[in-house]
Amino acid sequence: MIPTAQLCELFLSTRSRTEEMCQPLQTEDYVVQPIVDVSPPKWHLGHTTWFFEEFLLDAFIPGYKRYHPEYAYVFNSYYESVGKRVVRTDRGNLSRPSVKEVYAYRQHVTEAMKEFCKNHLDEDNRHILEIGIHHEKQHQELLLTDIKYILGNNPLLPVYGEVESEEFIENSKTEFISIKDGIYHIGHDCEDFCYDNELPRHRVFLEPYAIANKLVTNGEWLEFINDGGYANVLLWHTEGWDWVKKNDIQHPMYWFQENGVWKQYLLGGAKAIDPNATVTHISYYEAFAFAQWKGMRLPTEFEWEVASSKFDYGKRWEWTESAYLPYPNYSKPDGALGEYNGKFMVNQKVLRGSSIATPDHHVRKTYRNFFHSYLRWQFTGLRLAKSL
Amino acid sequence: MIPTAQLCELFLSTRSRTEEMCQPLQTEDYVVQPIVDVSPPKWHLGHTTWFFEEFLLDAFIPGYKRYHPEYAYVFNSYYESVGKRVVRTDRGNLSRPSVKEVYAYRQHVTEAMKEFCKNHLDEDNRHILEIGIHHEKQHQELLLTDIKYILGNNPLLPVYGEVESEEFIENSKTEFISIKDGIYHIGHDCEDFCYDNELPRHRVFLEPYAIANKLVTNGEWLEFINDGGYANVLLWHTEGWDWVKKNDIQHPMYWFQENGVWKQYLLGGAKAIDPNATVTHISYYEAFAFAQWKGMRLPTEFEWEVASSKFDYGKRWEWTESAYLPYPNYSKPDGALGEYNGKFMVNQKVLRGSSIATPDHHVRKTYRNFFHSYLRWQFTGLRLAKSL
Amino acid sequence: MIPTAQLCELFLSTRSRTEEMCQPLQTEDYVVQPIVDVSPPKWHLGHTTWFFEEFLLDAFIPGYKRYHPEYAYVFNSYYESVGKRVVRTDRGNLSRPSVKEVYAYRQHVTEAMKEFCKNHLDEDNRHILEIGIHHEKQHQELLLTDIKYILGNNPLLPVYGEVESEEFIENSKTEFISIKDGIYHIGHDCEDFCYDNELPRHRVFLEPYAIANKLVTNGEWLEFINDGGYANVLLWHTEGWDWVKKNDIQHPMYWFQENGVWKQYLLGGAKAIDPNATVTHISYYEAFAFAQWKGMRLPTEFEWEVASSKFDYGKRWEWTESAYLPYPNYSKPDGALGEYNGKFMVNQKVLRGSSIATPDHHVRKTYRNFFHSYLRWQFTGLRLAKSL
Amino acid sequence: MIPTAQLCELFLSTRSRTEEMCQPLQTEDYVVQPIVDVSPPKWHLGHTTWFFEEFLLDAFIPGYKRYHPEYAYVFNSYYESVGKRVVRTDRGNLSRPSVKEVYAYRQHVTEAMKEFCKNHLDEDNRHILEIGIHHEKQHQELLLTDIKYILGNNPLLPVYGEVESEEFIENSKTEFISIKDGIYHIGHDCEDFCYDNELPRHRVFLEPYAIANKLVTNGEWLEFINDGGYANVLLWHTEGWDWVKKNDIQHPMYWFQENGVWKQYLLGGAKAIDPNATVTHISYYEAFAFAQWKGMRLPTEFEWEVASSKFDYGKRWEWTESAYLPYPNYSKPDGALGEYNGKFMVNQKVLRGSSIATPDHHVRKTYRNFFHSYLRWQFTGLRLAKSL
Repeated sequence: MIPTAQLCELFLSTRSRTEEMCQPLQTEDYVVQPIVDVSPPKWHLGHTTWFFEEFLLDAFIPGYKRYHPEYAYVFNSYYESVGKRVVRTDRGNLSRPSVKEVYAYRQHVTEAMKEFCKNHLDEDNRHILEIGIHHEKQHQELLLTDIKYILGNNPLLPVYGEVESEEFIENSKTEFISIKDGIYHIGHDCEDFCYDNELPRHRVFLEPYAIANKLVTNGEWLEFINDGGYANVLLWHTEGWDWVKKNDIQHPMYWFQENGVWKQYLLGGAKAIDPNATVTHISYYEAFAFAQWKGMRLPTEFEWEVASSKFDYGKRWEWTESAYLPYPNYSKPDGALGEYNGKFMVNQKVLRGSSIATPDHHVRKTYRNFFHSYLRWQFTGLRLAKSL
Repeated sequence: MIPTAQLCELFLSTRSRTEEMCQPLQTEDYVVQPIVDVSPPKWHLGHTTWFFEEFLLDAFIPGYKRYHPEYAYVFNSYYESVGKRVVRTDRGNLSRPSVKEVYAYRQHVTEAMKEFCKNHLDEDNRHILEIGIHHEKQHQELLLTDIKYILGNNPLLPVYGEVESEEFIENSKTEFISIKDGIYHIGHDCEDFCYDNELPRHRVFLEPYAIANKLVTNGEWLEFINDGGYANVLLWHTEGWDWVKKNDIQHPMYWFQENGVWKQYLLGGAKAIDPNATVTHISYYEAFAFAQWKGMRLPTEFEWEVASSKFDYGKRWEWTESAYLPYPNYSKPDGALGEYNGKFMVNQKVLRGSSIATPDHHVRKTYRNFFHSYLRWQFTGLRLAKSL
Repeated sequence: MIPTAQLCELFLSTRSRTEEMCQPLQTEDYVVQPIVDVSPPKWHLGHTTWFFEEFLLDAFIPGYKRYHPEYAYVFNSYYESVGKRVVRTDRGNLSRPSVKEVYAYRQHVTEAMKEFCKNHLDEDNRHILEIGIHHEKQHQELLLTDIKYILGNNPLLPVYGEVESEEFIENSKTEFISIKDGIYHIGHDCEDFCYDNELPRHRVFLEPYAIANKLVTNGEWLEFINDGGYANVLLWHTEGWDWVKKNDIQHPMYWFQENGVWKQYLLGGAKAIDPNATVTHISYYEAFAFAQWKGMRLPTEFEWEVASSKFDYGKRWEWTESAYLPYPNYSKPDGALGEYNGKFMVNQKVLRGSSIATPDHHVRKTYRNFFHSYLRWQFTGLRLAKSL
Repeated sequence: MIPTAQLCELFLSTRSRTEEMCQPLQTEDYVVQPIVDVSPPKWHLGHTTWFFEEFLLDAFIPGYKRYHPEYAYVFNSYYESVGKRVVRTDRGNLSRPSVKEVYAYRQHVTEAMKEFCKNHLDEDNRHILEIGIHHEKQHQELLLTDIKYILGNNPLLPVYGEVESEEFIENSKTEFISIKDGIYHIGHDCEDFCYDNELPRHRVFLEPYAIANKLVTNGEWLEFINDGGYANVLLWHTEGWDWVKKNDIQHPMYWFQENGVWKQYLLGGAKAIDPNATVTHISYYEAFAFAQWKGMRLPTEFEWEVASSKFDYGKRWEWTESAYLPYPNYSKPDGALGEYNGKFMVNQKVLRGSSIATPDHHVRKTYRNFFHSYLRWQFTGLRLAKSL
């Protein structure tokens, strides 16, 4: 368990990091919401702040006066039991509070939390502080992917700045790691912080399988494109095929052709596709179709977790074949914080690994990320597997 | 393996049974498609016929002349690799071919198949005949549920006729059967016919759990309603809650209140709710919320299969917590018949058991039914489970 | 004013005519509603019957017992002040009452109306009878166009039977009739039956103009197509252009190309386009764009009415440039019958003339038909005009 | 005709005025597009600038180099013949170009236009300059109403600043002005600038009518509300009623109730409804229903124009009963500028008068404004009329 002093430092460094990530933005970039899944950066700034005000300052400091009476309404996301929320598609319609006002709100709450850490932190609420910090870290990841969407879908293709490994070269040769059948332990061992969805640690039986040592590359994806992968109905799920047709999908997100050359938008600016780099920004539907085309499949999340010590994570969230479901004996926390994970456990797919946008403390082999099968704006990729 | 002679008899009895089920219908009932998931009865009659013409008569009889050049187009459902299909929402717009013509088409193909059984059946195609028969049996189940939807959503509430156990009384007391942790075998052993999605038989590890000996009843569901179950956001998945709000869901499908009395439409006519009867026509979302309200959960499909020898099937398809996914080492058949199951293995939930609409040969403990989480027009119910 | 005896005869002949029009139909054709604007034929049969039951039998015969307590609910169309209606898009989902039951209902009401004519007809209600008759005549027109839609959009292209002048040859040379500026009288003179929307007769000033003696032909329309008319944005209204793009419109409704030959579906069966026949089944948007392409315009409804004695009506409803608005001093009748016309006087265009589907008594130069600008399933055409 | 020097001054003062109107905005307010009809303020700034660059600088200065190669794409609105436009619903998703960049673009083009006025203005293009100026003036009006929508639909209800007569008190007693039947002249006499849709001046015959000397007030509207006007189907057009039901309309836009008091959002801040002030922000549907409720009607645009010398314009755009249609002998200009008005002449209603947002040069009795019947974000009101 993390010592209290360290927790408070982690709080402060997390708060700073979020703001640091926004430095390259212009005021206007903070405001827009081009699709429902992408939130305006200023909303991330306000929402992560509201979390601390709602669940710590207001809950544990008697007589605490909220910074602004309407902010709970504006910055709540989906904690329906706490109060009426702004409908999600409306976030991009709110020009106020202004970016400056949101930063002032952040500053105010950060200061109040410093005082809270000194005088109010106790056994009852330190777990909530820890969740609040990790909640903000999760939003840091979304913040970067949302910024990429906002800039990368603008006709002017504005530059945010280089992000390490956004283009990630996989030079090693593909090899398959064989894993024997047997009972394996899955889930977090609870020594450090983890989310409820990683618990409890439990046993799973796996039939023998093999899993690739590296992620699929742009070069392999170009072969898939050139072989008509996007036009061959037999490779796709029915609803994947409907998605392809309805949205005229022909390549990963952020790819485009210019004078016959395949290019992609990167946060550092548009550039030509490198065939040795890891393919990124694909949906589960595409990952599945690609694996079918290869005559293989995606690993389950359990297969991934068991084998994960044998490979480096590939800097991409890796789609698995597993649906996002509760582990045996899973129990969700009481009250509003119980809305954190369990309520999403239907019709989503698990992604394992981590991405270049993932904050350090979230990189662990038991971490369960989850998204809808059609989403592509995260840094997603795939690793092949096969039954033996 | 079923002997050939018996297979041909099964073909004929299956064909007869489909037609027998339609006897109570008036011509108009064959035509309509009130929602996208419900197909017009005459479409079921034609589509199951087309299957034999497409995959046996046309495929294996040299020079076979199709009954009508356009019927392949009209009666194909989703075998996209075979040809252009009528968009599913258009089925209810087609007044022609008429019911009489569809019966003539059936008669023609049934006769041609008799001849086929005598002179063309061989090792290469008998499996296809077997699939065709089971395919028609599956449509028999849909046929009955679609008829119920068509009649039960008509303001005149027309009567179809009594269906045995449509109202199914569960008089025994609820008890929980405990199952120990361990490795269990899941899936079909292949001695008899089964679908590809039940294969291969493989090992699964289960943590200890308990499962109810009977299904949830109308009386328990009324308690859920009266306790505000449909209004308590904390019981629901996020997308379940959105579904409840958008569609103003307040009770199972076919229930209504008249002068303060809860009633339901049955194929035999509307009648008052019997609290001892099994609750039916609920979505997965509702089943999940009910289990949450009880402080329990739904069983996984593996837990269900392992325990299933200890209880009678409850005459209802039972929602499980499992997503519809391929078993380890699953492989889909080649060609158009490979489109049968695998392409639906995303974002659907598994139901286990069987219902009053299920033909005899489809009642087996390894059978995997699957539907989207919001659907209610099947004879669906739920059984509670809990981790130990 | 039509004598009473004649009115009762007109009632009976109108009833017979409706049924006669349905003779070529198969039962299934009575049921479907392929688009929201097309009603199932059996609905027309029931709705026109309900009108007499609602506004005469039930209103004027003390103690009259309705034929069926639910039919008012099933067959009301849009008289919202009379009771809850079946939402229009649901009409095609109702398999019951059956066609046979609807005919029985018709028979019952027709008989009751015979008795009504003998014993209850008086000064207060004979106007309602007259409206009821004309109401049914209007539905006769819709009945034929709806049947054409139902059959003509079926992949089997079933034949209804020859309809006189469905293909109407205009052999005369196009000439323009000049009309001087001046004050003209517009509207019905009230000697015979007319609708409220044709009243009151009033004065309109017209600037000088010229109007074609004949309707535009298929041959001219083919020139428009071949000249890229459907692809030239400058010819279209903004919302017309959006409609073209969204629906991929490239030719009149019921036209199709087969082996390079332009054909059209007619009630008598598909056949090659005759360039000398009047173009039919076009929207107002198309009519407008065609006139722009010709460097001319459509006539207003007033210009049309004033000039109409100089040409034969062309067997097509002719789109005018006029919006459907009330005449000066227009007053709508009180009560439910007041819902007949006035409530539609926004965002629709006036059509003048008549079509091959128009019953005799509705062919008059003051008649104002009206439809939304995008609709094409009526027998619509156009006549060119220009300012002088 | 306005002298050239004056025209250039008018250009400069118009450009300044637009920017002055934006002074109270924060950067974020420039960016959002809460509904499709409302454009982001920075888009108005850029679009009005692009107009001068496209139709004057680029068209008439040989070798002119555009400020930015992508801006024509970003800031074109609906001139489809000029190039691909940004789909209208996307405007609010564009964070770039930034507000600062848009101002720089404005500054650049304004300077280039100064030089243009000196060296390139001639008989061929001075009309385009005049149109460009009036085009920008029209956008000034939209700019204010769009700003009101953006701020007035924000939960924080931010203040823009007092706008003269936004609340306009009508203290005089309602009287009806009678107008005799006869031929009247309608349309602009062309001495000064006008739009093509005001031409040509032509003759119209009017039957006798009376028209109110003042606009309907909030007090009268409250009576309408309290009398159940929004719940009485007989007062409404069918499509108006559907609009009321679908959007749950119960009062004018920007009205709300707080502790039983009716209030409204004004640009100067929320305040209680003044019953003597002119009712504002109503749709045509509501205006029509209100007039029906009064037993009267709206004037036609011709009745309005003829009587307009007898009353002050009421500071509100007044819905008329007239559809937006071309005058007799109307001809649209050639080329892209021909897309200005004519292409909208279907399914819209004419509004006459002017509003508090209307720039001076646009207040004239022949001016024809037009909007769809359901729109309310303009400063709209109504004046009653009746036939005599």
